[in-house]
Amino acid sequence: MKRILLAYTLSALCLLPVFAGGGEGSLPISYVNPFIGTTNFGTTNPGAVCPNGMMSVVPFNVMGSEDNKYDKDARWWSTPYEFHNCFFTGYSHVNLSGVGCPELGSLLLMPTTGELSVDYKEYGSRYKDEQASPGYYSNFLTRYNVKTEVSATPRTGVSRFTFPAGQSHVLLNLGEGLTNETGAFLKQVSDTEFEGMKLLGTFCYNPQAIFPIYFVMRVNKQPVSSGYWKKQRPMTGVEAEWDPDNGHYKLYTRYRKEIAGDDIGAFLTFNTTEGEQIEVQMGVSFVSIENARLNLDTEQSGKNFSQVLADARMRWNEDLSRILVEGGTEEQKTVFYTALYHTLIHPNILQDVNGQYPAMESNEILITNGDRYTVFSLWDTYRNVHQLLTLVYPERQLQMVRSMLDMYREHGWLPKWELYGRETLTMEGDPSIPVIVDTWLKGLRDFDIDLAYEAMYKSATLPGTENLLRPDNDDYMSLGYVPLREQYDNSVSHALEYYIADYSLSLLAEALGKKEDARFFYNRSLGYKHYYSKEFGTFRPILPDGQFYSPFNPRQGENFEPNPGFHEGCAWNYSFYVPHDVKGLARLMGGQKPFIEKLQRVFDDGLYDPANEPDIAYAHLFSYFKGEEWRTQKETQRLLQKYFKNAPDGIPGNDDTGTMSTWAIFNMIGFYPDCPGDPYYTLTTPVFDKVVIRLDPDTWGSDKLVIETKRPSAESLYIREMELGGKKLSRYRISHEELIKGGTLRFILR
Amino acid sequence: MKRILLAYTLSALCLLPVFAGGGEGSLPISYVNPFIGTTNFGTTNPGAVCPNGMMSVVPFNVMGSEDNKYDKDARWWSTPYEFHNCFFTGYSHVNLSGVGCPELGSLLLMPTTGELSVDYKEYGSRYKDEQASPGYYSNFLTRYNVKTEVSATPRTGVSRFTFPAGQSHVLLNLGEGLTNETGAFLKQVSDTEFEGMKLLGTFCYNPQAIFPIYFVMRVNKQPVSSGYWKKQRPMTGVEAEWDPDNGHYKLYTRYRKEIAGDDIGAFLTFNTTEGEQIEVQMGVSFVSIENARLNLDTEQSGKNFSQVLADARMRWNEDLSRILVEGGTEEQKTVFYTALYHTLIHPNILQDVNGQYPAMESNEILITNGDRYTVFSLWDTYRNVHQLLTLVYPERQLQMVRSMLDMYREHGWLPKWELYGRETLTMEGDPSIPVIVDTWLKGLRDFDIDLAYEAMYKSATLPGTENLLRPDNDDYMSLGYVPLREQYDNSVSHALEYYIADYSLSLLAEALGKKEDARFFYNRSLGYKHYYSKEFGTFRPILPDGQFYSPFNPRQGENFEPNPGFHEGCAWNYSFYVPHDVKGLARLMGGQKPFIEKLQRVFDDGLYDPANEPDIAYAHLFSYFKGEEWRTQKETQRLLQKYFKNAPDGIPGNDDTGTMSTWAIFNMIGFYPDCPGDPYYTLTTPVFDKVVIRLDPDTWGSDKLVIETKRPSAESLYIREMELGGKKLSRYRISHEELIKGGTLRFILR
Repeated sequence: MKRILLAYTLSALCLLPVFAGGGEGSLPISYVNPFIGTTNFGTTNPGAVCPNGMMSVVPFNVMGSEDNKYDKDARWWSTPYEFHNCFFTGYSHVNLSGVGCPELGSLLLMPTTGELSVDYKEYGSRYKDEQASPGYYSNFLTRYNVKTEVSATPRTGVSRFTFPAGQSHVLLNLGEGLTNETGAFLKQVSDTEFEGMKLLGTFCYNPQAIFPIYFVMRVNKQPVSSGYWKKQRPMTGVEAEWDPDNGHYKLYTRYRKEIAGDDIGAFLTFNTTEGEQIEVQMGVSFVSIENARLNLDTEQSGKNFSQVLADARMRWNEDLSRILVEGGTEEQKTVFYTALYHTLIHPNILQDVNGQYPAMESNEILITNGDRYTVFSLWDTYRNVHQLLTLVYPERQLQMVRSMLDMYREHGWLPKWELYGRETLTMEGDPSIPVIVDTWLKGLRDFDIDLAYEAMYKSATLPGTENLLRPDNDDYMSLGYVPLREQYDNSVSHALEYYIADYSLSLLAEALGKKEDARFFYNRSLGYKHYYSKEFGTFRPILPDGQFYSPFNPRQGENFEPNPGFHEGCAWNYSFYVPHDVKGLARLMGGQKPFIEKLQRVFDDGLYDPANEPDIAYAHLFSYFKGEEWRTQKETQRLLQKYFKNAPDGIPGNDDTGTMSTWAIFNMIGFYPDCPGDPYYTLTTPVFDKVVIRLDPDTWGSDKLVIETKRPSAESLYIREMELGGKKLSRYRISHEELIKGGTLRFILR
Repeated sequence: MKRILLAYTLSALCLLPVFAGGGEGSLPISYVNPFIGTTNFGTTNPGAVCPNGMMSVVPFNVMGSEDNKYDKDARWWSTPYEFHNCFFTGYSHVNLSGVGCPELGSLLLMPTTGELSVDYKEYGSRYKDEQASPGYYSNFLTRYNVKTEVSATPRTGVSRFTFPAGQSHVLLNLGEGLTNETGAFLKQVSDTEFEGMKLLGTFCYNPQAIFPIYFVMRVNKQPVSSGYWKKQRPMTGVEAEWDPDNGHYKLYTRYRKEIAGDDIGAFLTFNTTEGEQIEVQMGVSFVSIENARLNLDTEQSGKNFSQVLADARMRWNEDLSRILVEGGTEEQKTVFYTALYHTLIHPNILQDVNGQYPAMESNEILITNGDRYTVFSLWDTYRNVHQLLTLVYPERQLQMVRSMLDMYREHGWLPKWELYGRETLTMEGDPSIPVIVDTWLKGLRDFDIDLAYEAMYKSATLPGTENLLRPDNDDYMSLGYVPLREQYDNSVSHALEYYIADYSLSLLAEALGKKEDARFFYNRSLGYKHYYSKEFGTFRPILPDGQFYSPFNPRQGENFEPNPGFHEGCAWNYSFYVPHDVKGLARLMGGQKPFIEKLQRVFDDGLYDPANEPDIAYAHLFSYFKGEEWRTQKETQRLLQKYFKNAPDGIPGNDDTGTMSTWAIFNMIGFYPDCPGDPYYTLTTPVFDKVVIRLDPDTWGSDKLVIETKRPSAESLYIREMELGGKKLSRYRISHEELIKGGTLRFILR
């Protein structure tokens, strides 16, 4: 099999800003390779989606055949697509990109030919000629000789199937999908339209994080026959003898009213001529079937497949063009723009075209003013994604903060890991605080900061039993840390997140003139020191009696095995994660020299995990110390080169809704926001010769930020000199305000 | 366990006609024992229902425990209740009475206490103190100390649960039920109201006979908690480890939007005080949830349990009082009124209070003018039920015929075994023809007889491939009989039904002046002679080459084992079933004497099956022959006494929506319509001294029909003399018109 990165001719897009960099006239969109991250557990996918769109249409290839290397039901599996799999069972509608738990990925739409089969273990097909570009995916089903193509609007999908002559089918499978939740209903509204609901949820095995997706599906040709199917429950004895459908998929050939069940679907059969194209539209909503229809009618009204695709590509190119790069290799540009593409998938809009959305943890339907965002993987994205959005897409970041505050209004809590109106409580900490504080301190302030402060103060101070976000707040508040009360309670990880959140909160309190609060939370943020074990030189869990946990192995947890006190990692992955008090941590560790040596050892001894969040800003910590900045430059360039590639395995692990991609973006353009909540960046060596970030003048008072790099040779790695706004710069950490006001950041390498 | 036949004090019913018979002042309703027929495969049930009501609320005791003797999943089982079972798992809403295939019996409502369990294998309870009377059933759940009571309006049910102090629950199980069809959706509309849909169908294993039931359930107390449950599909491997609900019933404690699946339910938990009563209302519709709510709002508006019950009892007493009997034993009165009660359950209304109903084999919703009836088990009921309705409930019979004609308008075919808008095609023949002809010939003529004739002519003459009702019409029309083309194709049974239908059609053609048609169908109705085997003296299947089927055993099929040519019976059960040409059959069998001797042998040698329809009019055939009428009188009395009792096994087999019960009714009052379609009755010995049938004067020109019997002693069995309208009567077969005009039929026994 050969996947083609589609170099789409953009004849219809002449109005778009043309990418001037590199002299080749290519558009940013042409540098996106949606196959990057589709193996190596990157969990991205090559499906069609619009920027921050609700809808994505993704080739689903993770079930139904032993020929697949990765089967969703045979292992822990969190993505609808795997590059090395080969058995296609349809297009899933509405999917997550770059997450670590299975969810969504349902409404499976499959074209077949010949005799009708509705069993996905039978009807799947191998494929070839995969092509993907933003807003487009295509393949060719070798079993059926059907070319399939998909595209999307923000809330709807469209598939175009090119059939051979004969009997052809379109199947909609509601029984399977990536989600572990089952149950759906379906109704045939007319010969060419079906509507229904599929239950989703149980994300990261939170059994109550349940929500429905509503849909309307339409085909543009009258079928010769159609109906439903449902897997029948197995019977025994006499009953089984009498019922030929017992345990099988039964076809409902005459019944047309609502059908419901765990494993149901719809089929449409057509007589097709050679090369005949049938288009299938899918509108969705998280509010109602009526809204799904309204979304479909609004966004695809009068548009055929080609027009929908042209629109999607225009949206992407506009968004990607906010950062224009020159220099660098074709590979680097592809890594860069694909990373930007991945970063713009989530959070995505939740509201329908009429503004309705399902309120947070509620049965109410509300109407939003502006976009309502969902899919907040905040334990990941608070580290860098929102900082990138603040700088480059401030209108979206501001609206995301407003969405977070609306969640507080509706639910009483800021989000932790919000998914389609459900608080899934995945991972730990209080990550909304640094996101909102960072946004405010950088100057995006058109939201109710008093309400935000109230919300933050609530989770920071309420007792644990009443505290959804900080369930171990009793210990934390009374002891200054969280002791290990259960073998695998991730207590150290929890506390480290609280320290960072409290530090952010202290910055905001200070900015709001709440001196006492500021001091209180700042002091609390230094409680990390409790965990430092001189014996091991790392953080170490503390037992309820105040003693360190023993026996202790700081490398335990390296390979995702359970580890007392630490979540998804070993003590080394966490022991430098005090970004708000790096100097204090260094003192604790014996001063600059031991700190630097130990930190370097983390990289040299393979104790650095590039695939998970706690240590991803380790490389930047060197730059806190005069004379050690070269190590930041060396490590960020080394990590970029080693882990970020124009290849399916070109992301080191779960992209985490763009967090890994954003790590690459910032480090490729020369600065990184290493302390969430604190409006500062650490500077490092860019890979491009010139980067132009198109700024929103109303927000930043300037229409661009330029990063220029003079590179004596292709191997030049280290920064020799820097200028900001034409003035020499000798510090390697600068504030957001300095950067914006400087306007041009110039690196001269050596 | 002791079941009590509830002698309900009818203080609220003083306006009702008081039953004058027997001198004890008891109302007819007080003679109904709903436990009759609830074992011995009578398949009746003791649940609460109104006459011809859509709703019935039935104690469901056929699943979930090995303590039950009859389990719905362990064998062929067609009724929600069995007298000898002991494990109660709730009340099923909308049920069939007296049928032989499992269907309906869903929306299972169960009260429990203590810790919440939603697994029916766990939450069921033994019970005691069963009580039942028309419109009422009650028991006491010994495990929970909960008294349960149910009643019904025509389209809604109500349950009253008397709880002990503590935590109490109301469960609605949509995953189980008598139907073999699965799938439901459910939505909590408010703290006290749920709505949803359950899929029903696959009646008698017709896989396409599928229809939905919609419902709205309301409780009259605010629960302290509520939610859904759904059985999770079993997972394997890592997934199974991560999901604690894997393969179990998961509780959905916060989700409140639609849920759907194969095995779902709703729970409501209450804090109850000792003796606290909670009422649960259930409205249903076969059109929509909105109509289910409308039905509930209309029929139970402002009414509590007691008022609903009083209404139901009033309806029953009014209907049962159309026949008043005097004399006879208490047992005989109980058998009689219970039989009348059973006969008035089906066909039942299908339309909602706004007149809407699902059109026949269609997705359309239509509005009926007058009642739209459903549940036409016509292979059974064409024999006597519709004749009883014509005489005593002519307004209903007329409306049933109109419903049948509307089905023809909607679907193109008169019904065969219609069930909630589906033609299930159960059993054989063309049974609408004798029903409609019988009705017309007796004088109920306010329907479109030309359309009816068109419909009958269609099924009687269309080729088999186009003929839904007579699939073997090609053979039948060309040969005059149906040869055996498959081992168990029931070919003789099919043909015998066609002969009877054709005879009826010939009578109608004659009445309509269509002489040629009349002669044609009459001649065809005599084709039964092909099947007569002199060798065996019975009917015998014929092979396609014209030879009789060999080897042949006329007793094969006695015990419901498959039998070539005959459906549910042996050759003996069918060989006298030519009611339209008894004398011709007698000639074929060698004349009166051999005929009578052979017929008597059927009874004497145990070749008569009292539990299935083909031979149930055998006893009346004696009366076609002068001097042999005493045999009819003897056998009908003997069969009544042997098979119809005031006991749970007091019906000889499936009641067949009242057919067996109607057999008892007619024979107990002294006449029987032994030739469907032919407006004649055979007279036999009544068991009562006086029977007053209150006639509709507008229909019959008289307000009553009186049957008086002088009985020299209690043992008097045979008829010595008869008078009709004061004139001596010497014939034992009289026409319907003679009977009505006579006004009083007097028997003097010896």
